[in-house]
Amino acid sequence: MTRLLIIGGSDAGISAALRARELDAAVEPTIIMADQFPNFSICGLPFFISGEVLDWRNLAHRTAEEITGQGIHVRMNHWAETIDPVQKMVTVKDPSGQRQFLSYDKLILGTGGTSVYPHLPGLDLPGVYPLRWMADSFAVHKQVTEQAPQQAVIIGAGYIGLEMADALTLRGLGVTLIQRSESILKTVDPSLSQLVQDELQRRGVEVVTGVSVRQIESKENRLVVSDANGLKRVTDLVIVAVGVNPSTQLAQTAGIQTGIRGAIQVNRRMETNFSDIYAAGDCVETYHRLLKQNTYLPLGTTAHKQGRIAGENAVGGSREFEGSLGTQVVKIFDVAAARTGLRDDDAAAAGFNPVTVETEAWDHKVYYPGAHKLRIRVTGDRTSGRLLGAQIAGHYQGEVAKRIDIFATALFHHMTVDAINDLDLSYTPPLGSPWDAVQMATQGWLRQFSEFSRQEVPLHL
Amino acid sequence: MTRLLIIGGSDAGISAALRARELDAAVEPTIIMADQFPNFSICGLPFFISGEVLDWRNLAHRTAEEITGQGIHVRMNHWAETIDPVQKMVTVKDPSGQRQFLSYDKLILGTGGTSVYPHLPGLDLPGVYPLRWMADSFAVHKQVTEQAPQQAVIIGAGYIGLEMADALTLRGLGVTLIQRSESILKTVDPSLSQLVQDELQRRGVEVVTGVSVRQIESKENRLVVSDANGLKRVTDLVIVAVGVNPSTQLAQTAGIQTGIRGAIQVNRRMETNFSDIYAAGDCVETYHRLLKQNTYLPLGTTAHKQGRIAGENAVGGSREFEGSLGTQVVKIFDVAAARTGLRDDDAAAAGFNPVTVETEAWDHKVYYPGAHKLRIRVTGDRTSGRLLGAQIAGHYQGEVAKRIDIFATALFHHMTVDAINDLDLSYTPPLGSPWDAVQMATQGWLRQFSEFSRQEVPLHL
Repeated sequence: MTRLLIIGGSDAGISAALRARELDAAVEPTIIMADQFPNFSICGLPFFISGEVLDWRNLAHRTAEEITGQGIHVRMNHWAETIDPVQKMVTVKDPSGQRQFLSYDKLILGTGGTSVYPHLPGLDLPGVYPLRWMADSFAVHKQVTEQAPQQAVIIGAGYIGLEMADALTLRGLGVTLIQRSESILKTVDPSLSQLVQDELQRRGVEVVTGVSVRQIESKENRLVVSDANGLKRVTDLVIVAVGVNPSTQLAQTAGIQTGIRGAIQVNRRMETNFSDIYAAGDCVETYHRLLKQNTYLPLGTTAHKQGRIAGENAVGGSREFEGSLGTQVVKIFDVAAARTGLRDDDAAAAGFNPVTVETEAWDHKVYYPGAHKLRIRVTGDRTSGRLLGAQIAGHYQGEVAKRIDIFATALFHHMTVDAINDLDLSYTPPLGSPWDAVQMATQGWLRQFSEFSRQEVPLHL
Repeated sequence: MTRLLIIGGSDAGISAALRARELDAAVEPTIIMADQFPNFSICGLPFFISGEVLDWRNLAHRTAEEITGQGIHVRMNHWAETIDPVQKMVTVKDPSGQRQFLSYDKLILGTGGTSVYPHLPGLDLPGVYPLRWMADSFAVHKQVTEQAPQQAVIIGAGYIGLEMADALTLRGLGVTLIQRSESILKTVDPSLSQLVQDELQRRGVEVVTGVSVRQIESKENRLVVSDANGLKRVTDLVIVAVGVNPSTQLAQTAGIQTGIRGAIQVNRRMETNFSDIYAAGDCVETYHRLLKQNTYLPLGTTAHKQGRIAGENAVGGSREFEGSLGTQVVKIFDVAAARTGLRDDDAAAAGFNPVTVETEAWDHKVYYPGAHKLRIRVTGDRTSGRLLGAQIAGHYQGEVAKRIDIFATALFHHMTVDAINDLDLSYTPPLGSPWDAVQMATQGWLRQFSEFSRQEVPLHL
């Protein structure tokens, strides 16, 4: 019987264990995890803090009982200290501080990521929080519910920063969002992130861009956040959300090869440089389907897929990860912004000849009540006519999320921009148009590059 | 200069004209149409009658001025009488009753469909309506707004019948829906149409299935609808919506080949048996991408695509219609039901070895407020593992329409059921799950047919 050991009880680790069990009932995977919250939805933390999720226990994709009920052993509050890839042995510290030595036939690493901490005086003050694990979340929740803070400063305007601006506003706090670059939500182009910024401001969030926070100080029981040019905000709590790095110290110490930003190097079978050691999720480099090379792209969806593949291969399968397109969506108040594939800069850097065209289209026939205008950006290759990426922003009820998925499915198959018009998509006036908004956007691109709108485009993939 | 003549001013004809102009500015297409409502959204008629669309003029995809502004000549209230494919001449009767003779280099037929009339005494009584053209719609609208009818009977529970049940209920009428077969909405499987039926009944619509109407009589200023077994409903108006047939008498008289249900036979370039005569939309047989043969599948989306291709080829292009998947969605009150591809019966008849598995999945993480449960049916081939079709029903805000489009895009590319799990779809807790509902449904199918869940499936397309 294969002894399958998994380090990490979040998306990648649990997906791996479930898949191994599904394919081989003789395997009883053991999961080592550092806290007592297996399979928790990290992406759900802002909605717990906002009060939209009343009980934090609901954030579990599955309960511990459901996981162990599947024949999976879970050791919570256990800390993996070292891996010996030759002896195939992992040293683990249990909750009492005792060392245990666990041998394995196959090992899967799902050690995840950690919040990036900027070099900033005051980061360790009470009231200053990252937001990555359950413990962070409980601490913020406790302060918000028990101390009735009035003001919050959020440093970083990526997904978590924006969702926290939404969440703390719903909680009644005044929120200042501070972003170092000139626009928020760097994962989409400025014309779309502007829609999100407008929505934040409409809801009373102060958005400050182009500002680097220099320090956080404690003054008269409050916190003071300031930059080098006179910006100063007095606040009760500070959320630091400037990004995520792979957690790979354990792997590096064991001689497992790492690459981009310290992430574990894996092939498409999710194998590391050691046979019998797999890795998946936020701790690994991720194969990009369009770039045909590894990148660092930590996403929950990807962690689930990679974990499933690692679990499958650890019990004798031979499945390959088909690659990420970086498909993402975020909802901030009533606005959703989504993307998939490459934008101009990424695409040009990869040797494509990209151009992006923006189109506005209604989510459904405008004569039917409740139509929302969507802003859709299509990126295509001028040389080949190939679709390279798409971005959509608009009201979240305009099916923004699943429309980006139509583009993602098209990108998966390396379609041309023009071929999107051949897709047989659904239509009824309350929910679409005879040419869906995604097709109106591809037609918008084609009208500017009309040589692609009639000829068969050869694809060199 | 190519003289391009188009018969029919609805979806197919207008799309053809616009595309021809887009590609060749020297062509000035002439459109002959029988009424004065060019490019009207026939699918929108129920929403005009319901009062959701206040001004019928808003139902136009484009106004007559917008069309003529594109360099397209539109002859409204002109009736095409005969086509001479040898002399390349069309005889047209103008509004004054005068005959005109129009010669062409290229002719495109977009003559559409007509409502099926069952053999039923009383069909010609005042207050009995089909619902296909604007004139029908005005007549119903006039009676509903001016005569304050109390009761309506709808014969036929397809898309139009169901939408009219919704519309007339919103208008305050008591509605009885009578369907000959045992379940309504025959385009989806009974477990999904049942959700629609539940919703109709919840809103007060009387749904009668398994009943053939035998006659409609006029009695004391009202109408009486009855069957042969004692069913009798006294009503103020009757909508007959039992299907659509292709309008091809003009074509048939000219010797243009017709086939299934009298629809015009075309190849994938939308050419008829006469060179220089194209046809598109509800009047033609439609190539089905999975069946690899023609069917009769009249849909507005398809009419737009086919018209665009006919217009492109008429001015020298060489584009092929990539095929229909029969993708459809309908919204009845708060429930949407959608389908794409084949169901068990169609697939078995075509030589596949199909099996359908139903899964329930939330549209987004259930811990976030407002989650809707979706019922998803996945049809796959037991022999090859290939995806053959999908159906979804649930609350219309659960992104039912665009989720069916993910399946449609996958079907377009002949994916296996298992490969759906490789798609990089978007996720945020308010709008999805790490494995989207469509992937949970394909995993549900795979769990029942586990040989497909690990091996590479060879595809013989």
